[in-house]
Amino acid sequence: MTAYESLCHLAQEIALLASTSSILGWDQETYMPSKALDHRARQLSYLSAKSHALATGKPFRKALERALKDGETRGSRNAANLREWEYELQRASRIPTALVAEESNITTHARHAWVEARKNSDFGIFARHLESILKIARRKATLWGYADEPYDALLVGYERGARTRSIARLFNQLQPSLASIAKNAVIKSRHVPKNLLKGKYPIAKQQQLNAEIAESIGFDFQAGRIDTTTHPFCTTLGPQDVRLTTRYDQTDFTSSLFGVLHEAGHGLYEQGLPAAEFGCPSGTAVSLGIHESQSRLWENHVGRSEAFWKRWLPRAAELFPNLRKLSLEDFLAAIHRAEFSFIRVEADEATYDMHILLRFNIERQLLNGTLSVTQIPEAWNDQFEALFGLRPPDDAHGCLQDIHWSLGGLGYFATYTLGNLNAAQLYAQASQDRKIHSSLNSANYGPLLAWLRFHVHSRGSTLLPNELMKKATGQGTDAAAYLDHLSKRFNSSTGNRRARK
Amino acid sequence: MTAYESLCHLAQEIALLASTSSILGWDQETYMPSKALDHRARQLSYLSAKSHALATGKPFRKALERALKDGETRGSRNAANLREWEYELQRASRIPTALVAEESNITTHARHAWVEARKNSDFGIFARHLESILKIARRKATLWGYADEPYDALLVGYERGARTRSIARLFNQLQPSLASIAKNAVIKSRHVPKNLLKGKYPIAKQQQLNAEIAESIGFDFQAGRIDTTTHPFCTTLGPQDVRLTTRYDQTDFTSSLFGVLHEAGHGLYEQGLPAAEFGCPSGTAVSLGIHESQSRLWENHVGRSEAFWKRWLPRAAELFPNLRKLSLEDFLAAIHRAEFSFIRVEADEATYDMHILLRFNIERQLLNGTLSVTQIPEAWNDQFEALFGLRPPDDAHGCLQDIHWSLGGLGYFATYTLGNLNAAQLYAQASQDRKIHSSLNSANYGPLLAWLRFHVHSRGSTLLPNELMKKATGQGTDAAAYLDHLSKRFNSSTGNRRARK
Repeated sequence: MTAYESLCHLAQEIALLASTSSILGWDQETYMPSKALDHRARQLSYLSAKSHALATGKPFRKALERALKDGETRGSRNAANLREWEYELQRASRIPTALVAEESNITTHARHAWVEARKNSDFGIFARHLESILKIARRKATLWGYADEPYDALLVGYERGARTRSIARLFNQLQPSLASIAKNAVIKSRHVPKNLLKGKYPIAKQQQLNAEIAESIGFDFQAGRIDTTTHPFCTTLGPQDVRLTTRYDQTDFTSSLFGVLHEAGHGLYEQGLPAAEFGCPSGTAVSLGIHESQSRLWENHVGRSEAFWKRWLPRAAELFPNLRKLSLEDFLAAIHRAEFSFIRVEADEATYDMHILLRFNIERQLLNGTLSVTQIPEAWNDQFEALFGLRPPDDAHGCLQDIHWSLGGLGYFATYTLGNLNAAQLYAQASQDRKIHSSLNSANYGPLLAWLRFHVHSRGSTLLPNELMKKATGQGTDAAAYLDHLSKRFNSSTGNRRARK
Repeated sequence: MTAYESLCHLAQEIALLASTSSILGWDQETYMPSKALDHRARQLSYLSAKSHALATGKPFRKALERALKDGETRGSRNAANLREWEYELQRASRIPTALVAEESNITTHARHAWVEARKNSDFGIFARHLESILKIARRKATLWGYADEPYDALLVGYERGARTRSIARLFNQLQPSLASIAKNAVIKSRHVPKNLLKGKYPIAKQQQLNAEIAESIGFDFQAGRIDTTTHPFCTTLGPQDVRLTTRYDQTDFTSSLFGVLHEAGHGLYEQGLPAAEFGCPSGTAVSLGIHESQSRLWENHVGRSEAFWKRWLPRAAELFPNLRKLSLEDFLAAIHRAEFSFIRVEADEATYDMHILLRFNIERQLLNGTLSVTQIPEAWNDQFEALFGLRPPDDAHGCLQDIHWSLGGLGYFATYTLGNLNAAQLYAQASQDRKIHSSLNSANYGPLLAWLRFHVHSRGSTLLPNELMKKATGQGTDAAAYLDHLSKRFNSSTGNRRARK
């Protein structure tokens, strides 16, 4: 066996363990009975310890050293794998095992405290835990090292090759335009009745429609499925096993449907990764910003388009009689309705990114030490008011709403907006192809998917995210296509028209 | 850490891996998409190799040696654990790893071949594979060693401490009585219309009833659940996580219900094992013959009794209007209806064991070399005809119907009838308690469950199966209680009455 082959072998073994953990995690969210939690936690911690030991152990190090010395990297995919393995090993090795264990212990308790704090809207319950998490995040940043500021070191864990400075520049450039688009969209939406779609939507029929639509965009149900959870997600249990989840609102079918389109977008990416390279970087999604581009592309660019609903509204009306009186125009007005609101995960397309900009600022200040944990609630509310013109009534509707910090996920939020930018840019590029453009108009999603398979999915992590964007669209992640998309959507005649009662 | 503590620690680690495999197996049967099979197989084989290595590895051996030398076995539970660990290690060590791998490979292919063979009712497709399986079984029997005949060595893998000779004696003693009871039951059942219960039973309502009943007998849904599979089973994913499955016939609710009662009987046993000793013999079910006694006790002794349906028929009739016209008497006649049939898993209580006696004879002859694989179809059909007075029309209805041999499960079938005997014996003993007896009459199952918790579940594997029976009932597994039960059920006035149309 060559050194490179040994590395593949070890990487596959690590992936086998990691995908086993994923099954345990999926079951925990979907079907596991409540009393099983303790044993499940033991299983998960056992498996992650085993896979961490393999990933940083001597056999892996030695094989990597030999492979790098051999220079036996036929083809760019192998070279990319070596590059990523070296990068990951360096990063993993800088964190002592004791710190990993300490963090796992702190976040287990922090997650509990966060649930309590949010329930009681009492930041005090969570503050002490967040202090510890922040302390660990800063220690990790120091151990990893960074170019400009500590946030860099955390960010690259989610978005390989990203720089905080560049993202801040991009976000600053976006902010005034986003604010103006959002404001206009909200003003126009006042004419659209809030409950235009409210009705009776039996879950079984929602599931039927969701499955038909997921299948039509290319999701392979022989290599995946959809289940029900409180918080929708997508997880990969193996190279041919991608599980989506959604939740159902029996008074509005679009809630589960857009959830499924979003998660199926993630799922198509995972199903499109080279299965034979499962476990190697070349068979693994490259970053959260690229992952989110796939979910947002199918959810917003495809799923909220006029062409899409020209095809699917009649089918939806077959299943849900109360839609029969609704015109396509009114339906589109309803799903493009914008509103300033406190909760990120319920935000519409026009206002969503302002929630992200806020979080990015707060996190950066925390890591730079210019904001202390105890100052968060006030800073959050002030900044929220400046952006949205509303002040959160309590911390549950403010700085306590998201789970991320309690899990140690500092530096994660920025990737949501990167995902929106990438989605718009990739969609605009793909749509320049006449065949794709016209096939979308006839609700044929095969050509678009094929384009994404080639330019995004098949690449795995062989290119860094920004290189992938350059190769696919001619330039790195940029704001232009996204602003163009939002302007068209929220200044278009459809958005402008008054919905009939 | 003492040597005994090290052993506990290692046993828990093995159990952690084994329970992880169980989750993977459960998901494979319930929700896994079809294309995921290859990766799942790799995960399962990886995990079983790891746990086999731990179970036969040097640390385990050394710790066991030290613990046995120390004699530091405070309490009989610890002594029982040492006894079982020593036994298991000796057995596992006699089988070379290469043979384990060879068997796994052969059975993977044999299972495929069996599916094909059964579908086409062509024994020839399966014969060659069964030859290999038989060869391996005989090799294993030789390696393990046995007192009287090779069947002994296989049997004890399922029924610790059992002897083929004793079982044969028991079965020979049973056979004439069973045959006569079955014949009478079938003759009497001719007066009971076959489709007395046929109707429309929506799955959601069956699930509702099944859950109510499972809960009423004590199944803890916070530590377990029920899903749907083609072949019902019960599996334990952790000390507080027991998963049952059933299948639904929309024209007859009793099919899923008796399935759930059966599997919940297994589940109650698993939920009643001492959770703190999970992974140790003292926290593990002792044998298949005891396990099956728990499922049969709840399915047949409780679940097919008059007292049970006095309570539950009115509830069933609330959910299923077509039952409203049916008297309790007629309902009981319907669920006690007996018929000679070809398929074991569809057989009724009166004829079931004759299917087992047949298989026990055939397997024993195969292992003793007095019957060759190619002779099976004819031998099966001849023996079936002698027992049932019918000849199977083809091998799918004969020697190809069961999956067990294709999985390498030779020596397993006998435990089904042992389970029936044990169930009757335990139930008769428990019912002598006045409180239990009267509580069953008012559909209160708590006292019976408490009795089983004490006499069976809490013991884990601290007693050998026959010792457990002796301690619980005053004697080892015996035919008397079961024959008494069958005679009462199938000669009783209820069974005798002619059902009104």
